[in-house]
Amino acid sequence: MSLLVVGSVALDTVETPFGKVEEALGGSATYFSAAASLLTGVRVVAVVGDDFPAEHVEMLQSRGIDLEGLGRVQGRTFRWSGRYGFDLNQAITLDTQLNVFENFDPELPAAYRDTEYVFLANIHPELQLKVLEQISGEAFVGADTMNFWIEGERDALEEVFRRVQCVTINEAEAREFTGESNLFRAARKIAGLGPRYLVIKRGEYGALLWHEEEVFFTPAYPLEEVFDPTGAGDSFAGGFFGYLASCGAHDPYTVRRGIVVGSVIASYNVEDFSLSRLLEVTSEQIAERVDHFGRMTRLDIEGVDRSDEGVIVDRNE
Amino acid sequence: MSLLVVGSVALDTVETPFGKVEEALGGSATYFSAAASLLTGVRVVAVVGDDFPAEHVEMLQSRGIDLEGLGRVQGRTFRWSGRYGFDLNQAITLDTQLNVFENFDPELPAAYRDTEYVFLANIHPELQLKVLEQISGEAFVGADTMNFWIEGERDALEEVFRRVQCVTINEAEAREFTGESNLFRAARKIAGLGPRYLVIKRGEYGALLWHEEEVFFTPAYPLEEVFDPTGAGDSFAGGFFGYLASCGAHDPYTVRRGIVVGSVIASYNVEDFSLSRLLEVTSEQIAERVDHFGRMTRLDIEGVDRSDEGVIVDRNE
Repeated sequence: MSLLVVGSVALDTVETPFGKVEEALGGSATYFSAAASLLTGVRVVAVVGDDFPAEHVEMLQSRGIDLEGLGRVQGRTFRWSGRYGFDLNQAITLDTQLNVFENFDPELPAAYRDTEYVFLANIHPELQLKVLEQISGEAFVGADTMNFWIEGERDALEEVFRRVQCVTINEAEAREFTGESNLFRAARKIAGLGPRYLVIKRGEYGALLWHEEEVFFTPAYPLEEVFDPTGAGDSFAGGFFGYLASCGAHDPYTVRRGIVVGSVIASYNVEDFSLSRLLEVTSEQIAERVDHFGRMTRLDIEGVDRSDEGVIVDRNE
Repeated sequence: MSLLVVGSVALDTVETPFGKVEEALGGSATYFSAAASLLTGVRVVAVVGDDFPAEHVEMLQSRGIDLEGLGRVQGRTFRWSGRYGFDLNQAITLDTQLNVFENFDPELPAAYRDTEYVFLANIHPELQLKVLEQISGEAFVGADTMNFWIEGERDALEEVFRRVQCVTINEAEAREFTGESNLFRAARKIAGLGPRYLVIKRGEYGALLWHEEEVFFTPAYPLEEVFDPTGAGDSFAGGFFGYLASCGAHDPYTVRRGIVVGSVIASYNVEDFSLSRLLEVTSEQIAERVDHFGRMTRLDIEGVDRSDEGVIVDRNE
């Protein structure tokens, strides 16, 4: 089924303890669509300046990414520059130049309005609402956000959460948004606004899904070398929503499996700068790590089902 | 099969945002044995002073805890006093009075020397080695430690790790001990010393098991109210080793399941001060959370096996 992402396309300058890239292709819509394109076609609504390299456009199109919704306006493309220390958990932003992204006003081409799976990447919540108004059908919509909007645009963000089917949010942001230090109370509050699924991202600790009072935990794929964490969240979302769209389903089973597929694709993404790793990874490599996830969390090893075992003494009865 | 713990018995004064207890029963051997006693009998080697209340001795014995190895010497019992803030992750130690624990010299009664499952709780690594020398049979031995010994008694601690079958250690301690910021490289280094199983405790993020280059992840049980985290690690270890001893097995399947049972028992322990919750919890309640763990990590919901599904496009082939 059809899939759409609305977000940013940027040129990133990133420094990690392992190297540096200058003006490499980045942005939430870029990471999302590159990840999703491993599973299905994807439509992009974003904006770039007249300095955006043609080679990037060609590369994305060659991967089945539909760029009809990519606006090209006079001015410079969004630039972001950041650095990671050895712990790789938190980027230090060195410079942000919004440029043409500052006046981004998402306009869906007519052919995009009936898209069935939609992801609203981290943009101003008023713009996220504007996209929702342009969708004509009964889309399954996910939305991401960041602390900046939680602090400055709370009402609009709450309205987004009320109107989408799935919210993805970082652990610290979920706590900040709800004022709850306990993560499960925070999850209940956000889910109480309306979204059927809530995905809380916990960085190196993986993610948890909150759905109808039930929790599903998935670890992050165990990597011994993380090269550049930029785009981890967006490539996760792209793999997750790409999987849902490719299955044409969003039942709890498909959503759980989608979270694992998203985690696997994100795990490849962080193994190199920019999109380098996503442009190489094979379906066999993805399938291998998805299978590995199953083994890493399964209690009945190698198909042995001994789940009725139990030798608990009735000491307190 | 028989189970032995060597550790501390203390009187704890603990303050959390939810209340305060003074001189409540605590200590690693106490939490361990109270947890393990839900599953099997357990022998204790520890020391208390002549001020140690008789009611505690009677209560522990009434639960099938063998106190032949509990030394009673002249002086005061070990006291610890600490406070937790709202995040409940880290105790602030207000006061430590080692008292009779300062000269603890673990001596195993003759009847304990052939114990089959042994846990060396967090004590001086030289004392852990001394216990190992007193064990006559082919015991399955686990050892815990803390940053204090990593910093001050590295060689002895390394020798302990070389001689036991299972190490339990906190995430930050694993990184500190190995000098590796990446947790999986840290795990490989510790496992390289010899222990067949390595359990890395990650607090609210659960635990991971490293065994023959394979990782098993288990989340912490999702609690909306944590009352007092004191003893979480020791009640986890008691539930874990109690399960192994009660099964008389330590194959990878049993160890995985033991980690889940330990996590469940620790989750009950933190719901109240001291041992209060462990003295009440029923086998039915434990079984309920163990089942819940399975549901919270399982990809094939409600027994639906669709594991051969896969719609990954060969974009990079």
